[in-house]
Amino acid sequence: MCAILDNKLFNFRVRFPEDVANFLILDSVNVEYFTGFSGAVAFLVPRDGECVLYVSGTNFEQARHEVKNVRVELLRRGERLFDRVGCDVEVSVCAKLAVDVLSFEGWRFLVKVLGDDGCVVVLGDVVVGLRAVKLSEEVALIGEACRLADVGMGVACEVVGSGVSELEVAAEVEYAMRKRGSCGVAFNTIVVSGAVGAFPHGACGCRFIKEGDLVVVDLGAVVGGYRSDITRTFVVGRASGRQRKLFDVVREAQSLAIDAMHAGVGAANVDVLAREFIGDAGFGGYFVHNLGHGVGLAIHEAPVLGPVSADVLAVGNVVTVEPGIYIVGFGGIRVEDTVLVTDNGVKKLTKTPYTFELAKF
Amino acid sequence: MCAILDNKLFNFRVRFPEDVANFLILDSVNVEYFTGFSGAVAFLVPRDGECVLYVSGTNFEQARHEVKNVRVELLRRGERLFDRVGCDVEVSVCAKLAVDVLSFEGWRFLVKVLGDDGCVVVLGDVVVGLRAVKLSEEVALIGEACRLADVGMGVACEVVGSGVSELEVAAEVEYAMRKRGSCGVAFNTIVVSGAVGAFPHGACGCRFIKEGDLVVVDLGAVVGGYRSDITRTFVVGRASGRQRKLFDVVREAQSLAIDAMHAGVGAANVDVLAREFIGDAGFGGYFVHNLGHGVGLAIHEAPVLGPVSADVLAVGNVVTVEPGIYIVGFGGIRVEDTVLVTDNGVKKLTKTPYTFELAKF
Repeated sequence: MCAILDNKLFNFRVRFPEDVANFLILDSVNVEYFTGFSGAVAFLVPRDGECVLYVSGTNFEQARHEVKNVRVELLRRGERLFDRVGCDVEVSVCAKLAVDVLSFEGWRFLVKVLGDDGCVVVLGDVVVGLRAVKLSEEVALIGEACRLADVGMGVACEVVGSGVSELEVAAEVEYAMRKRGSCGVAFNTIVVSGAVGAFPHGACGCRFIKEGDLVVVDLGAVVGGYRSDITRTFVVGRASGRQRKLFDVVREAQSLAIDAMHAGVGAANVDVLAREFIGDAGFGGYFVHNLGHGVGLAIHEAPVLGPVSADVLAVGNVVTVEPGIYIVGFGGIRVEDTVLVTDNGVKKLTKTPYTFELAKF
Repeated sequence: MCAILDNKLFNFRVRFPEDVANFLILDSVNVEYFTGFSGAVAFLVPRDGECVLYVSGTNFEQARHEVKNVRVELLRRGERLFDRVGCDVEVSVCAKLAVDVLSFEGWRFLVKVLGDDGCVVVLGDVVVGLRAVKLSEEVALIGEACRLADVGMGVACEVVGSGVSELEVAAEVEYAMRKRGSCGVAFNTIVVSGAVGAFPHGACGCRFIKEGDLVVVDLGAVVGGYRSDITRTFVVGRASGRQRKLFDVVREAQSLAIDAMHAGVGAANVDVLAREFIGDAGFGGYFVHNLGHGVGLAIHEAPVLGPVSADVLAVGNVVTVEPGIYIVGFGGIRVEDTVLVTDNGVKKLTKTPYTFELAKF
């Protein structure tokens, strides 16, 4: 979607070091980020000259059809990418080959092909940093994915009830998003009820929801490869005093965090604000995960909103804000929205109301 | 599901070399394979002593609840796995640490922590080989996933028709599988119609299917983490002579391949049999991918059924058999089943009939 197929624009955005002559993008999501095409093996950006997209036979014709302004080359059956790259580029210590990711075995093979281990450099962070700051086209796609996630959560709100299975809720939610144009789901939909809700990443099972249960629903849609992420927690019927108390603490923690967010703020500070509030309310040991994470082509990407994160929020970051309290034997409560960081605050991209009690009269 | 939590059983199955004292499983699907738990960071199997599952705070309580007979250890926030492993194991050149996968940066860090680069060895193939041969419990789960895939394909057969969008077909298919217990989809459902069918991995779009279109539907379900994979190609209405000819060639190529398969046969030989048949029929240049791939916890795993594969079929392999012909500007035809390799042949796990014409009168 980003489609940086021009090496001048790539150089401008990635700014690779003086001693790098070629950048080879190997991570499949990074390749999709730069080319808009998800079925290629690798993408080569030279400092000077034409960019090359390497594609195997399966997707070669599709790539030729869909990817413009770049040389699409067939990687033949049995041909190894690094052998081919070794023929296509010349490297030296003054004209290194940079890669975004590399396995240990890949490194050994590449060094064998290229002849010198000082000629390969792994520069993953630069692409991570680039992807963390969304362009307006990317924000539009994530916004649409968030709109579909709101549709899904609206359906969850209608469907969750006593006697309904977790699986049925997931089926109805996913169906509604799919019918309206979601390209699959952003991640495995989570519907966990009762005591199982104490496990933040519990999947949805066959359990039937009961009156009085806490039900955590965590879902996301996909539009043009870009994802969304939202969680709401419901109680079936009237909330007990303890359920209401926990819900209010989580909601307040989320509001505090969101109100404190803007470009230039340390991501750790935002996490700690929510974490201390939950701690002061007496539930410090029960908020067992980070406050949030970046969302884009991947469901988890930079920046990280966590207590040990070194990230600083920037205009264009799209992140989740998702405090939670999880008590084994009791259940879990999490509230999550996907938000866009702006100069003077954040804009919520998911907009489902914070309904808690699903009392049906 | 496999749940090899006992180091004696692990040693028996993995048979790690004499000079290896500990095996650290890092690939998340491999960790799931050995422990049945999908939310852990790593799994350590010592030659002697207790196995250790490292889990971050998010999934710690769930792991303690679900994974028995193994020590579940919390990986604290900010703590790096390799630092922890460095404290937990002692290595030497006679007592190496084996890992299943390793990034280049991971290797550099691990060597720094452990102090000697002769003490770490990457033994990925041994786990790949193990996973390729399914145990009876795994076959049962894949069989159930195949049954759900048949349900999905049955729905596709009913829904595909003139005026229906590709997206709607995907939505109905996925909904039907989900309602019957599929844990999401095995991969992004493919519904491609008309000329776009010439791209084997085209996604489903908003295109409305028309009378006379070829429609490729490729889908799979998930049960207990295990996947299934099936493709059928339909023509809406009566097939033209050329459509029928292509379909018959693809079907016959699949039958030939399946009839030739049994334990001990080279996977390349099976591929070449189907490939030569398609070539002899005059479509050699249009079968642009491998004949098939292993299916299990991952949708693509060993063995590979391709012309340059070195794999030999073994009892317990579960693989797809999926010849296809793709002609740009015309469309594509693919027929695929998931099959289990046995001593004297194969057993089809997907059982949808090979309906081609969807003529509705």
